[in-house]
Parts: sequence; C-alpha cells; structure tokens
Amino acid sequence: MQHEHFRRHGKDIIDWITEYMENGYEGAVFPKTTPGEVLAQLPAHPPQEAEPPEQVFADFESLILPHTTHWNDPRFFAYFPANHSGPGILGDLLSAGLGVNAMSWVTSPAATELEMRMIDWLGEMLGLPWKGCIQDTASSATFCAMLAAREQAADVNQEGFYGQQPMTVYASEHAHSSMQKAVWMAGFGERYLRLVPGETDDFAMNAEALAEMIEQDIAQGFRPVFVMSTVGTTSSTAIDPLHAIADLCEKHGLWHHVDAALAGAAAILPEQRWILDGTERADSFCFNPHKWMFTNFDCSVLMVKDPNALKKALAINPEYLKAGQDAVVENFRDWGIQLGRRFRALKLWYVIRCFGVAGLQEKIRTHLAMTQWFAAQVKQDPRFQLLTEPKLNTVCFHCDSDALSQALLKAINDSGQAYLSHTVLRGRYVIRVAFGQIHGTQQHAENLWRLVGECYAAMAKPD
Amino acid sequence: MQHEHFRRHGKDIIDWITEYMENGYEGAVFPKTTPGEVLAQLPAHPPQEAEPPEQVFADFESLILPHTTHWNDPRFFAYFPANHSGPGILGDLLSAGLGVNAMSWVTSPAATELEMRMIDWLGEMLGLPWKGCIQDTASSATFCAMLAAREQAADVNQEGFYGQQPMTVYASEHAHSSMQKAVWMAGFGERYLRLVPGETDDFAMNAEALAEMIEQDIAQGFRPVFVMSTVGTTSSTAIDPLHAIADLCEKHGLWHHVDAALAGAAAILPEQRWILDGTERADSFCFNPHKWMFTNFDCSVLMVKDPNALKKALAINPEYLKAGQDAVVENFRDWGIQLGRRFRALKLWYVIRCFGVAGLQEKIRTHLAMTQWFAAQVKQDPRFQLLTEPKLNTVCFHCDSDALSQALLKAINDSGQAYLSHTVLRGRYVIRVAFGQIHGTQQHAENLWRLVGECYAAMAKPD
Repeated sequence: MQHEHFRRHGKDIIDWITEYMENGYEGAVFPKTTPGEVLAQLPAHPPQEAEPPEQVFADFESLILPHTTHWNDPRFFAYFPANHSGPGILGDLLSAGLGVNAMSWVTSPAATELEMRMIDWLGEMLGLPWKGCIQDTASSATFCAMLAAREQAADVNQEGFYGQQPMTVYASEHAHSSMQKAVWMAGFGERYLRLVPGETDDFAMNAEALAEMIEQDIAQGFRPVFVMSTVGTTSSTAIDPLHAIADLCEKHGLWHHVDAALAGAAAILPEQRWILDGTERADSFCFNPHKWMFTNFDCSVLMVKDPNALKKALAINPEYLKAGQDAVVENFRDWGIQLGRRFRALKLWYVIRCFGVAGLQEKIRTHLAMTQWFAAQVKQDPRFQLLTEPKLNTVCFHCDSDALSQALLKAINDSGQAYLSHTVLRGRYVIRVAFGQIHGTQQHAENLWRLVGECYAAMAKPD
Repeated sequence: MQHEHFRRHGKDIIDWITEYMENGYEGAVFPKTTPGEVLAQLPAHPPQEAEPPEQVFADFESLILPHTTHWNDPRFFAYFPANHSGPGILGDLLSAGLGVNAMSWVTSPAATELEMRMIDWLGEMLGLPWKGCIQDTASSATFCAMLAAREQAADVNQEGFYGQQPMTVYASEHAHSSMQKAVWMAGFGERYLRLVPGETDDFAMNAEALAEMIEQDIAQGFRPVFVMSTVGTTSSTAIDPLHAIADLCEKHGLWHHVDAALAGAAAILPEQRWILDGTERADSFCFNPHKWMFTNFDCSVLMVKDPNALKKALAINPEYLKAGQDAVVENFRDWGIQLGRRFRALKLWYVIRCFGVAGLQEKIRTHLAMTQWFAAQVKQDPRFQLLTEPKLNTVCFHCDSDALSQALLKAINDSGQAYLSHTVLRGRYVIRVAFGQIHGTQQHAENLWRLVGECYAAMAKPD
C-alpha cells in the first residue's frame, strides 16, 4: 500500500468513525446472527495478491458490521460498558502509528514516564496516591495481585507448591469469574478458594462469614493468604465492606486486593468517593478506565501499596534485556504477565486532558442519574420487581416468574433496539440494565423504558 | 470534544502518521533521555477543564517524540522488530472506532468468526492447519500452553499442586525469558525448570542432553510434563531440532510447545518452511504477526492440535456469561488468560489482504537478503567476528574484546543514527543486529554498516 493510499483511506475511516459516534448504527444493536454465518461468507483461503483497503472496508461494512454486537451504541446496556471515545481513539491511533513497545524504560522512556504520570493523575483523582501500571484487563490485574500475595506467603516462584501448607484464598460469591480463573492459573487449586456468602439484602460480602472461614481454615492447618473485595460486583454492583475485610486481613496477615473494575471510575466524583473508603488499608487496587472512563479497551489500572511486593513476584532480568538506569523509573515488564506492552498511557493522556476531570465527572453523573431514573420507573411499575436499590450504574429487576423475565429479555434483545444481559441472584433469573455508555443520554434511558413496556405488552397479548 | 473536532484532529494524526512512515523521524532513533526527564516536565496534576486535542498533540511532539525509542524507524535493529504497517494501523483504527469486546461469540459474532478465519488463513500460509486464537504476546501464549500441559498431567485447577509428584518442564538455555516467568506464574517452581544446553556451534537445543535430563528426572521420581522448543531464539535465532524433541515428547508423553514468536513469519516463504518441520508433531505453536508480519502490536497467534486440551485448562462459565450457541463457533475467552479481548482479527485481515501473501513474502525475502549481505560484510572484516551463520534475520558479531564490543555498541547507539542491542553467548558480549523493519531497505543495511565502521574508527582514534 502506498503511503498516499494509507492517508486517503485513513481519512475515510476517520469519517466513518465520526458518523458512527455521532449518528450511531442504523441496524440492530444485537445482531441476529446464526453461528457460522459470517465464517461461511469469508473466503477459505488468503489472497495471493494485494487488495485495496477500500475493498476490505466494503466487506467490513457488508459482512462484519451487521454481525457485530455494537458495544458503543447507546442502546447497549448489557454486561458493563467497554467505552471508546473520541479522545481515546485519537490516543490509540497515535500509539498505533508510533508502534512503540513499552516493555522497559530503555525501550520507551517517554512511554514509561507518561504511564507513571498517568497513574499519579489517577491516584489524585481517586484519592489513592499509590504507584501502579496499566494492565490489559482486570483478569490480569487480579492474577498479578494474587501472585504477589502468593510470593509474599511462600517462595512458590522458586520452590513450587510441593510440601507447602495449603494456601487458601477468599472472595465474595458475587466476585468476578476472573478470580476463579486466577486461582486456577496460579496453581492454588479451586478447592482452596472460599466463596464467601453475600448479604441477603444488597449482595455485599458477609464479613462475619469471611472471619469464620479464615478461622476454620487456620484451624484445619491451611494458610490464608489473599482476599479479594469487590466494589461494584458484576451481577448487581454490590459493594463489599472494605473496612471490615481490612480488619481481618490485617489481623491475619492476608493480602487484600480491591477489585473496582467498573466502579472505580465513579470514585472520581467527590459524592461517590465513599465507595473506595478503606481501600487505603488494602494492598492492591484495580479499576478499568476502559469501562466507565471512556478510554478505549484495553486499559486496566493496577495500583499497589508496595510495588516491591508485586515485582518480587514478576520481575525477571535476562541478559538481552539488561540496560543500566537509575531507580527513578520503572520497567513495567516487571509489573505484569507480558514482556511486550503497548503504549496505552497515550490514550489515557488524551482522555483525561480532552475531557478534563470535570468533563469526566459530568458524564458519570449523567449516567448515575439515568440509572436512578430507570430504577424509579421499575419501582413504581407493578409488573416488575426491583431487586435492590442501585448504588451505581446497574438496575437489576425481574418479572413475576423466571420464564417471563427470560422471555422479556429475549424479546427486547430480538428487537434489535436494545441489548441487555442477565444474571441469577437469590435463585432468580434477573434482567440487568447497565448504564454508562459514552454516547448514551437520558433520551436513551427513556427509549429503553418504552421498549421494555412494549415488549412486555406484546408478550401478554394472545397470538 | 465535538464530533467535528474529532474528525479534524483525527485527520491531522493520519497526516502525521503518513509522514512518519514515509520520511521517518528526523531526530535520534534512540533518545538520550535521562531517567525522570520526561516525568519532570509532565504536570503533576490532571487538568480540571477540557483541553483541545491539538494541545495534547503539541505536547506529544515536543515531549514524547524526542524521548521515544523509535521502534518502527528503519534505523532500529535492536531486540526483534515490533512492526506496524499502513494496513495494520487502518485495521487497528477501525477496531478502536468499533470498540467491540471479543470475549465470547455472542458478544461479537463477526469478531469471533473473523478471528477463526484468520487462523485458517495463517494455518494455510504456514502449512499447519490447526485451530487457534489471537493472544496479546508470546509470553501469554507460552503460559497458556504450559497450563494446558499442566492440566493434561494433573488436575491442578481443582486440586492444586499439593501432594503431587513434582512436575518438571524443559526448554533450551537460549529460550525466551517468558518461559521462566510462565514457570513462576503457573506455580511449577523454577527448581523444576530444566534449561537444556545449546549446541556449541549454532546454539540449538542439544536433544541428547534433553533426553538425559528427562530420564534423570523420571529416575528421581519427578514427572516431566512440558517441553518448549524454540524456532528462532532471541539471542541468535537458533532453531531447536523439532523432530528429535518430538521423539522424546512422544516417548514420554510430554506436551510439546513450539515458540516461533519471531521466526514463524518466515515460514510463509516456501524456501523457509523447513524451519517448522516437525511442528506438526507438537501440541501447540506460537508466532507473532506483530513481529515480522507487519501487524500492529499486539498480535500473537497460539495454535493447538487439540483445542479441548487448552480449553480444559482455561474455560470457566459463570451465569452472567451464559448464552446458547452451537458448537460451530468458539468463545475465545476460554482460550486465554483474559476475559475481555480486543477485536484484533480486523488488523490481521487488513494486513493479509492489503499485502497479499505474495507481498508479505516479498518483504520478508528482502529482510533475509539484507541479513545475508550484512553478515557477509562482517565476515570479511578482520575487526569483527561473526558468531554464527545467520539462518534468519539476525546477525551476531563481536570485536576482539568484550570491552571493545561494549564500547562500539554504545558509540553506535549514542550516535542516534542506529539502535542495536546485545546479548551474551559463549561467555562473550555480542552485538545483535536484527533486520525485519517494515520501512527498512538495503540502503539502511548499508548505512548501518558504514556507521559501524565510523564508530569503530572513532574509538580507535586517540582523543
């Protein structure tokens, strides 16, 4: 491809993205795709000769776009958001153009130091002035925190687990599934993972149950090493009692990791900062700017009280990576799983500066207001039950029966006009509505509420 | 930021990238940055109010660019390349604009199915028709392969390592450092990692030594579970003897992983396909299109003979991720560490189609020729010793003494006109020159050779 061809088509894509952000996608937000449908239309063999990028883009429009779940569409209320934004895309584009590998300071001094400064900024915004780094996802961040806890307890890196006193780890039954996966990967064994019951009213971790589990494990000769608290669980955005959990961690010498993957962004609002109260007593903390802080996926931030504890678990130094430097700067390869690392700080820089802290706060406040508005509609409607008062961005509700809830969700998603997901709580099939879309406004909340009513009414009608 | 502002500045960045690709960077390829120098110039506090993106870009030009190691500059010969390309940037940009999370089929049918098809294409290009997925880096791919091996041998995911017969793992002493890190992370313990000596002539793994180590471990009551072969080691692109290693793996029931992170790309040339001979007898294989196949970082491909063995190690399925689908398609979250995944297949689609297989082959052939040319210059020059005949893209050479080699490397890098890295082999400090830069031509190889001569001559001169 000639450079001028890149320039021309690059600008075409910029135009397309601008339209996509401004006007949204005209088709279904959740596609009615049959498994294998796209695959069948993609050539089985790679092309021998070069094709123009316009041809690839034409296929993108005709084949990819209609079979895509539109995560950044304001009609997307499923899971949690994975927000892009204008500034995020610009920073990401510049990073792709530069193509730097930010593994070590020496391979990318500016990338490393900008990443350090972005963590400082986030620390100030969140009131948690720790050091940290950018990871890809909270899955990786949780895993790294768990490895730090493991190595604090025993030298598994060198000796393995053999002959050790079995180590136990703890999280709420509502904690994210990446906790379970981290337990698998790190070699703890799931039988040593304790899922602590949630409270019956708001699904927060029951700290008394945690205390009992720890005591029991100690009595049985196990060694408790790690607790993950969640601020904003995936199912219902429950907030675990950080101080009560911190008391137990301090008492028994456990590593305390706070997973606020979604919710952390809300803590940049002074009136929401309380959700992180107690985090300062923890050992590590994670939140994802790629969720609710409009920084293109992937961008997860892991912060730690004692960086050396993390580096002890993850720092290796082969000859071909050696290069002299002061202790002033970091080699972020020593803070995570991967050696190679993209220059992600650039998009964070664009986002924080082009929104400004006030701009970010305003967006999140709007989303919180939309959530409250939607919950109020559900509450006053006799056809639906609100499961719990939403503290953050997610409304959980259900119909009189699971079958009805399930049918309603299907009808909404099949309409193509909204995409919601579900969970199971208190044994019930529950519909989740997650707000926080970059392009979402109060109007979209109202549209969704109207759609819910229409789909419900259509189901009630005889065929 | 208004949409029109995004459009305008987006096009400015496209213009900048076009110039950067076409004309390169006028400053030093390797910056003379003092640790902390950038940090000191970055504001300590985040801005409260929004700033225009042009302001961020101006700071990028004045503060980031001069302190960046220019990985995509044709004067960069360090480590291995991390190549971007016009098509790769376009695909990446489109992916950022779309903002899809490709964790499950249901969250992104087109992204999942395009990823499956891209693996088919690569399988055909490499003559290895396996299933696979896109990972971020070879670090992650190696780790996942190792977990698959671990779970094939014992149910560590559920039971942990306690009470197990200790499991041993093997790789060449010249294998990538991510092997060691994977051993740490997966809980094997480094004392159960065996680094097999390399041959003295070409640094390939000594298969007889491997056979002895395995026998010894079995005799001692250990359980050998995993061997990683390397095709193209980091230090000198040595190629381990895959068939001899496969014989041992088959005999003893070990998982055999082939790490061809850099070199895999070369196997798309018919005349270079031999480097992967024997891979068909392995269990898993990894190569990085982000290195030498011009697909923006990050994009590493992990292929496996039996996908179920990998999924057994990594698939979990919580309620909020459940969604019905056929067995026709994959949920790639079950193939790796992270739940969240970017839509990376898009950039691979752009790259393979806009280069065409023939176009990719031509680029790589040029790089191989540059390597041979450079090695020939070294060989005929009495000031330098060529360490070993280069089989791929990397020339390793040294001066008469380590001190001289070290000083020469420093002089070259300090010139700002080239960036090389080093390694230690046979106890010698060795200068590495890695070719394979997307924008690199024979002219750049010649410029480098001239620079080497000039720097050497300048050192020899009395002050």
